[in-house]
Parts: sequence; C-alpha cells; structure tokens
Amino acid sequence: MVAVAHRVVIVGGGFGGLYAVRSLKHADVEVTVIDRRNFHLFQPLLYQVATGALSPAEIAAPLRYVLNRQKNTKVLLGEVEDIDVTGRAVILKDGSRVPYDTLILATGSTHSYFGHPEWEPFASGLKSVEDATEIRSRLLLAFERAERGTDPAARKAQLTFVIVGAGPTGVELAGAIGEISRDTLKKDFRAINPADASIFLIEGTNRVLPTYSPKLSRAAEEALTRLGVQVRTSAMATMVDQDGVTVKLKDGEMRIAATTVFWAAGVQASPLGQILAGKTGVKLDKAGRVCVEPDLSVAGHPEILVIGDLAGFLQDGQQLPGVAPTAIQQGQYAAKLIQGRLRNEKTKPFHYFDKGSLATIGRNSAVAKIGPVEFSGILAWAAWLFIHILYIVEFESRLLIVFQWAYDYFTHNRGARLITGNWENRS
Amino acid sequence: MVAVAHRVVIVGGGFGGLYAVRSLKHADVEVTVIDRRNFHLFQPLLYQVATGALSPAEIAAPLRYVLNRQKNTKVLLGEVEDIDVTGRAVILKDGSRVPYDTLILATGSTHSYFGHPEWEPFASGLKSVEDATEIRSRLLLAFERAERGTDPAARKAQLTFVIVGAGPTGVELAGAIGEISRDTLKKDFRAINPADASIFLIEGTNRVLPTYSPKLSRAAEEALTRLGVQVRTSAMATMVDQDGVTVKLKDGEMRIAATTVFWAAGVQASPLGQILAGKTGVKLDKAGRVCVEPDLSVAGHPEILVIGDLAGFLQDGQQLPGVAPTAIQQGQYAAKLIQGRLRNEKTKPFHYFDKGSLATIGRNSAVAKIGPVEFSGILAWAAWLFIHILYIVEFESRLLIVFQWAYDYFTHNRGARLITGNWENRS
Repeated sequence: MVAVAHRVVIVGGGFGGLYAVRSLKHADVEVTVIDRRNFHLFQPLLYQVATGALSPAEIAAPLRYVLNRQKNTKVLLGEVEDIDVTGRAVILKDGSRVPYDTLILATGSTHSYFGHPEWEPFASGLKSVEDATEIRSRLLLAFERAERGTDPAARKAQLTFVIVGAGPTGVELAGAIGEISRDTLKKDFRAINPADASIFLIEGTNRVLPTYSPKLSRAAEEALTRLGVQVRTSAMATMVDQDGVTVKLKDGEMRIAATTVFWAAGVQASPLGQILAGKTGVKLDKAGRVCVEPDLSVAGHPEILVIGDLAGFLQDGQQLPGVAPTAIQQGQYAAKLIQGRLRNEKTKPFHYFDKGSLATIGRNSAVAKIGPVEFSGILAWAAWLFIHILYIVEFESRLLIVFQWAYDYFTHNRGARLITGNWENRS
Repeated sequence: MVAVAHRVVIVGGGFGGLYAVRSLKHADVEVTVIDRRNFHLFQPLLYQVATGALSPAEIAAPLRYVLNRQKNTKVLLGEVEDIDVTGRAVILKDGSRVPYDTLILATGSTHSYFGHPEWEPFASGLKSVEDATEIRSRLLLAFERAERGTDPAARKAQLTFVIVGAGPTGVELAGAIGEISRDTLKKDFRAINPADASIFLIEGTNRVLPTYSPKLSRAAEEALTRLGVQVRTSAMATMVDQDGVTVKLKDGEMRIAATTVFWAAGVQASPLGQILAGKTGVKLDKAGRVCVEPDLSVAGHPEILVIGDLAGFLQDGQQLPGVAPTAIQQGQYAAKLIQGRLRNEKTKPFHYFDKGSLATIGRNSAVAKIGPVEFSGILAWAAWLFIHILYIVEFESRLLIVFQWAYDYFTHNRGARLITGNWENRS
C-alpha cells in the first residue's frame, strides 16, 4: 500500500504563498498552489510600472516557471469561490473541488475607499498589474490633454495630480510623479511646461509615512517638497468626483480641482476572509483581516492557516505592517509548522522579526530604517536599490531590471510610457 | 513681417510617419505628427510580445521622446476623423481642426477577415499592442485550461492551435508557438505535456512565405516541420467559430477542432483611405489602399501624400510589400519631395529599393534574401538578429532588448508570460 502524502493547498501566489511553497520544497507533502493569476507579482515595485519605469513582465514571474523544478508541487490557475470547511476542500469558480489536509490562505488585500466605493472610478488604486497600467495611462493622458487643450482652467486641473494616502505607496508614487513632471517629460511638450504640474499628497495623520519615526517622516517630507510635491497632513478626503477632491483640513476645507486622483489610502483584506468567518465563526478585524491564533491558524481549525495581508496578527499590541517581509516570514513559518506537525513536533508561536523599512522618494533619495539605524538621502537610496536587487535576483535572477534601472538612471528616461486601451472613450 | 513656415501634418507615427518627420528635421517647415497612440511601435517584433518573449514597452518608443529634440515638430495625441480637403485641415475626433499645407497620410492597415468580420472574436489578429497581449493571454490560457480539464476531447481542442496565413507574421507566430510548446513550457505542467500540442499553419497559396522564392519557402516549411508545425498549403479557411476552423483543401475539406485560432491572413488599409476617396475621387485598390501617383501624391491633390501600408503603389506591375522598409523609404521620399518643392526643384518618381527580406522560424533558424543571395538556417537567423538589433538601436538605443534576447536565448525562457485582463469571463 502506498502512503498518501499530506495535501497542502495554498491559495494565493504572492509573497506569503510563494515563500510557503518554496519552504515546503523538501517536505513529504503534495502541494497545490491556486492563484487567479498565472504570475507572482513583485508588488513593492508596482509603482514603477505605474510611473513608466518598468514593464509589468519585469516585476512578474510566471508561477509555473518559478515552481517548475519543485516536484511535489502543482500550480492551478483558478479563483477560489468557497471553502468547504467540513469536507476540507476549496471550491473553484468553475465548480471543481480541490481537497486539502492543510489549507493556507494567502489572498492578500485590496484598496478600500473608507466606505465610499463610488470614488473608485475617479481614484485608481494600485494593487494589480491592470491598476498600474491604468494609472500609467491616466497620468500620461493628463499631460496629453493639457497639451491639446486651450482653456486655462481646464488645463490647470489636467496638470493637477492628487495622491490620497502618504504611506510608502503614496509617497513613492508622489515622488515618481514629481520626477516625471520635473525631469522625464521636460523636453517633450510644446504648449505646456510639465514642471508646472501641481502634485498634492493628502495624509490623514499628522505626518507622511506614519509608521516610520518622526525623524524619517520629516526627511521624507523635505525630499517630497524638493520634487515639487505639496504635502497636506491632518487632511482627510471627504469627497472625490470627476472634477477633483474635497479635503477637510484641521482649520477648514479645501477643494482641489484635478482630473487625476490616485488612491493609496485604506486597505481591505481579501473577501475570502468573510467566507472563512461565515464558515468557522473566526473574528475579523476592522479591515476584514482574519484574527489568527499565535501559530497563524484559525481558532478551532488548526488545519487552516492564514498568512500575509489577510492575517490579523497583533504583536506588542500592534497589527503587523502589510508589507512583503511580514508575508514572507509568515509563509516560511507556515511551512515549518506543517513539517513540525508531520513529525509530531511542537512549533513556537509566530514572531515577526523587523529587519527594517525603506521607501524611495524619486531619484537619489530615500528614507531607511535598518535595525536600529535610521538614515535618509542618497545612502538610503543606495540601500533601497541594493536590497531590492538582492530580493529580485533571489527569486528569479531578474538581472534585466538592474540594466533597465541603470539605463534609465543615466539617461533620465522612462521607456515604458505607453497609453494602452481605449482612451478616447474614457471619461 | 515674419514668414509663416510651410505646415506639414503627418497622420500616423509608424515607420512611414516616423521616417518622414525625422527626414524633415532640418527643413524649414512646421511639422505636426498626429497619432492615436502615444508611441511608435516596432511592429516586426510584435509576434515576440504575442509569444511572451518581450514586453510591449520594449518594442515601443514614446513618440514625444523620440522627437523631443526636433524643434520644428510637435506631437498630438488624437484620432483623425475627417479631412477637409478644400480647407486643407484634418479634423480630429474631438472636433478640433489642424490646418496643413502638405498632408502626409501614413495610417497603415489592419487585418481583414475576407469579408467575414464575424470570425474576428474567434481569431485574433496581430496589429496592435492590445492584439499582442490578447494573443499572449489566449495562448497561455489554452495550456492552463488543458491542465485543469479532464475531458480528453476538450483537452485535445485546447492543445490545438491554428494560424491562418503563412506570410512572415504567420510563419513567425507558428514557429514561436512550436518553440513554446516543445521547449519553453517543457517542465511547467503536471497533467499535460505541452509538446503534445498540435499547431496548424493554413496557407491559401501553394507554399509558405509566398512572396519569397520557392527555395526559401521550402526551407521555411522544413524548419516549421521540425518545430512540430503542421503546414497545410492550398488551404482556405471557410469557417471559423468558437470550436475551430473548417478548411477547404485541394482534395476535400478538413475540420480542425481548436479553441485557439490566430489570424495572419488578409490585410485591409486604414479607413482613412475611404474618407480620402470620398473627398478627392482617388481610386482605391481591392485592399482599400489609395492608388497614388508616381510621387506618392493623390491625383489632383499634390499637397496630399500617402505612404506605407495605406499607399497603393505598383512597381513592375506589382504592389509593393507591406513591410517596414517600404514605409521607411516612402517616408524619406515624402520628406525629400516636400523640401524639393520648397526649393522649386523637381524630384524623381519614387522607386523602391529592395534590400531583401528575412523571417525567423524559432530558435537558430530563419530564411533570408539579402540582395541576390538567398540562405537559411542559423546563418540567416544571425543575419535576422543583426539587422533587427541595428534597426532597434538606431531608433532608440534600446540595447535592453539585446540583453533580454541573450538572456532568454541562454535560459530557454520567455519571461513575459502574463495573462492579463479578466480571463474568467472570457469565452
């Protein structure tokens, strides 16, 4: 009689899912990775696609290719629609069932509009490749329309960009737009001067990068200001429509006429959390994350693990940040836990080790916290570059990105400036 | 009083338009380039995007960037809807008028389905970036569905690819699909063997690459056969639907069950030809091309020039081939003609100089005719590579493509294997 291997099903091929499956490489298990995309996305660089520096394929690796040498693993392109918790199977949109002994949910999060889904058409978020190419098109179209237009008020609104939310994504996006308008497009237009563009960065708390130290927040704000970005803190977007954004400030209200608004504020965990809560009674936090046990499992269901942005995990009373290192460490932990269980060994509760954090603000500028050390400027930028190159090379030897960056750096160019899709019929 | 410069309006930023405007760089004219896309597309490599080897941005260059140093030139993102031949202005979709003294039309061609537009949803053509990413998604999805499926007949249809038309695009597409199924995806699947894929190349005339010599056609067919492509010549598609293609052969009929069909057969000139014919009475040929005078102008309208795929131009009784070199030479000629007229000099009629032609058939294999010399195999492939690198580097120093190719060549990989858009809801 042949022993049937322990079946692990991993839903989601982001950082959490990918590092979980890779850490199971030598385990005596049968792994199925299910993702509705056929590629792993290097999300921290998505803003570079949105701002024309990289192509989508340069920050994406086909999941099958990344995992093709891992003999105990198969990849399934599919969208999970339901979970049969009792029968231990996930159900795909096409009706097929994929049975599991252990289930790892790693479906991440999406943007949320603070209960105003009607703002979405006017304020693109940045979570997927399609989001990134949409932002890229809108950004470039704004300059094109201003060049073509004749009405000064309309032109001013076309050359005004608002980014809501000054976390790392918002800051990096604002910095890149600053660079595009002041540098990249400098010589490209005849009727307008791209450097006349107004860029507003709106943040609800009292400083940019609120999860960083006040010192680094200050450094980031200064770097943004040098790139022409107008930072507004303690400022809440109270209305977004096709003509712009209304912002509530500490001392009044402000209306910004802008045709292009980007959303980098709230996140909402993947809807799979809701489904799981309905089936198991597990609690969700305010952002829809699944409140997991100290070993990342679901209360009463040790066979279900939740990792990455979908996991609500408090450490020292604080939710862990929704960044790649959290997901990676949780993915590795989940793999270790499963292997420990197969050997009847106990595994210590999950503990996040914060190696540091980094955010770039345009060319030659970044803020960094590595271990206890905080620094900013060109040194932080070099650190950012070095660490991202390490990560990228680790996961798929994508040395070409390095060439692309070097090339863009020296030429001041962004080659991936494509407006695709049917823009003529767009609002 | 300031002399008003002669206004040249160029519609279309493909090879014809781009080489026309660049050849006018030092002319005492005011140039406006109008394109509905913000980029020039290196169309001969579009099949490499469709087959996951390159990213769209790698074969596209922002028009503004390419032309930003040309002081006498401005670029307008817009779609021409009409031409006021009497008032000498083109009218854009948004209603604005762009006046000209000389008009150059270079809007190219699109695919045509031999009077069967209803086939289009089932048989993607390959003319735009969106076409290429659509083909890429369909190609990869076919393998994904076969991996997921269980019904043998459905799986066989999912692993059957039909390419209609064996001109250079059809041959290159078929060769690349052969390579993908036999090589690139070799290790990526568990339930299927991608090498089991059937690839049919359907050609109406009695040989592949009918514009090449019979000797090269034979060499191309042999190379295709080695890659597993089944060539059917003297074969006409008589029906395309969601289940496959019906083909009329010399001696009967054949039905190919296939979920994925690509169209590389007929072309149809841009609809601007029809508009021009309505306004000027100029004749169109069967494919909708504008039958131009020996100097590429429209009869009775010397101020309107037509170049590239939109131009019907017979040389030695034959329509010139719809390839980049034709458009480039005609663009350069148009610029020369305009400058000659400004100096009151006569310009000799246009004459196409055929430098040769090249088509690749997968890795290490191509057919080439350079001047009077014909050859095939790895030497032809090296020539193809060399000439394409020269062209690419000439127009925008895109050395990165060279790195990408070298990388893919040695790793046998195609990194740009992204399925984008909403595939779950696709037929």
